[in-house]
Amino acid sequence: MSHPRFASFTTGKRHAYGLITETGVIDLSARFGARYPTLREVVEANAFDELLEAVAGHQPDFPLSEITYEIPIPAPEKIICVGVNFPDRNEEYKDGQAAPANPSLFIRFPRSFTGHDRPLIRPPESPQLDYEGEVTIVIGKGGRRISEADALDHIAALTLCNEGTIRDWVRHAKFNVTQGKNFDATGSIGPWLVPYKDESQLADIKLETRVNGEVRQQDRTSRMIFSFRKIINYISTFTTLVPGDVIVCGTPTGAGARFDPPIWLKPGDVVEVEAEGIGLLRNTIADEVF
Amino acid sequence: MSHPRFASFTTGKRHAYGLITETGVIDLSARFGARYPTLREVVEANAFDELLEAVAGHQPDFPLSEITYEIPIPAPEKIICVGVNFPDRNEEYKDGQAAPANPSLFIRFPRSFTGHDRPLIRPPESPQLDYEGEVTIVIGKGGRRISEADALDHIAALTLCNEGTIRDWVRHAKFNVTQGKNFDATGSIGPWLVPYKDESQLADIKLETRVNGEVRQQDRTSRMIFSFRKIINYISTFTTLVPGDVIVCGTPTGAGARFDPPIWLKPGDVVEVEAEGIGLLRNTIADEVF
Repeated sequence: MSHPRFASFTTGKRHAYGLITETGVIDLSARFGARYPTLREVVEANAFDELLEAVAGHQPDFPLSEITYEIPIPAPEKIICVGVNFPDRNEEYKDGQAAPANPSLFIRFPRSFTGHDRPLIRPPESPQLDYEGEVTIVIGKGGRRISEADALDHIAALTLCNEGTIRDWVRHAKFNVTQGKNFDATGSIGPWLVPYKDESQLADIKLETRVNGEVRQQDRTSRMIFSFRKIINYISTFTTLVPGDVIVCGTPTGAGARFDPPIWLKPGDVVEVEAEGIGLLRNTIADEVF
Repeated sequence: MSHPRFASFTTGKRHAYGLITETGVIDLSARFGARYPTLREVVEANAFDELLEAVAGHQPDFPLSEITYEIPIPAPEKIICVGVNFPDRNEEYKDGQAAPANPSLFIRFPRSFTGHDRPLIRPPESPQLDYEGEVTIVIGKGGRRISEADALDHIAALTLCNEGTIRDWVRHAKFNVTQGKNFDATGSIGPWLVPYKDESQLADIKLETRVNGEVRQQDRTSRMIFSFRKIINYISTFTTLVPGDVIVCGTPTGAGARFDPPIWLKPGDVVEVEAEGIGLLRNTIADEVF
């Protein structure tokens, strides 16, 4: 049985969330919006099963063609990204350093992401829009100094991220990647949340990124330098994790910047990030319109 | 005439905001909370003058001793910090590099800050809690690609930040300062918002940080490498600024890390950050209690 898929979306000007089926969307906001205004509150209440049971056997309220996908948690308190988390990625830096002792982390604002099936926006400031496909976890139960042993119990759901980057702006200043990681709508999260039930959903899944059908990144989560357990343990050492927090867990080797010469994304390209059991996140590229 | 001072605070379990007078607090939430739930909405509506007029001549509703200061904007969409923004600070790095071309930026979560007159929390993971006094602006009118000429029109208010840092965790990983800047309650913002009316409030004001009464940092905003205009222009190049966004504009030389040997903050210390026309932000230090 495939995992249920909970998506945030808009229909016209209405913000909503629902259950994605093969033929359409069962509108959950219409039924549960008063109690759970967004998927963040669903995650906080651990209510996925309640919602599933309530609409079991229902027909879709509208076809998929009528919705615009939004990022699954519309306003998470935090979106934390892990850098350099696959072995070959560290070697790509060619600085002779061994695998790092602790994960590099940076923060992205929600507005740096768009939803599934929508264009990533290439800004006029740079042609260096690049992709990074990543497995992404959403925190259900908050906490501080969460042990590695308990860490997976704090995951509510899984999703995917194209952690799109304006590559030359990552090194635009003396320190930190902030600006190259935060151009509006240069990345995507989605298409949906898959409730997390079991470590097998994460432990050794294939993650692949394709551009116009060509495989550019492919690896397995079992090869991550910092495991999901370690990431949750480490981040919660300094900050209290709360329900709805999003952690983007690192990308395999093979971003466009690593080619010689580099291959940047351009309008008309189609980027797909796919992971077993989670889904397929697809975005086109468009130039920003003023 | 001194500038009006708008603070966010709690009384018991109630979250509120009000006007700080010499003798107490005029409760504005009680009068305007339905229209403006927090100071973020006050800033968004540009309603400082409206609130001031409505309570002109009123007596305080309670004494200052009854309130606990909170950070002025309780849940800003963004808190962006500028690194290395005073000339001597760049030289402190002793890497032979000229002044940088663009500001280094990093992001802090609201929960990494506490309010005025409350302890900064030293975590058990490190003794290297350090201070950084900074002038801080709050965005009123949002925008993208704001010109330097128009930039100051987008400022709603001024405040102060002790951008407290766990120094060894700033370089805990290969890249980025994220973790050393985001330990819960290691910094502070406040005590209040002073509405921004005129460039003279910012252009050349003295900024000073004292520890137990001893001056550790002292400089003037006219010496900033990147001006307030440039900072707003640069940040809005990549991200859309929205009302309530907080920008922490950089610290002068003289943090504890720059002494030989370094002098870290310890329980019982009192740190004061003061700037002309804005106020005095004072915090003690306490060890985290489990």
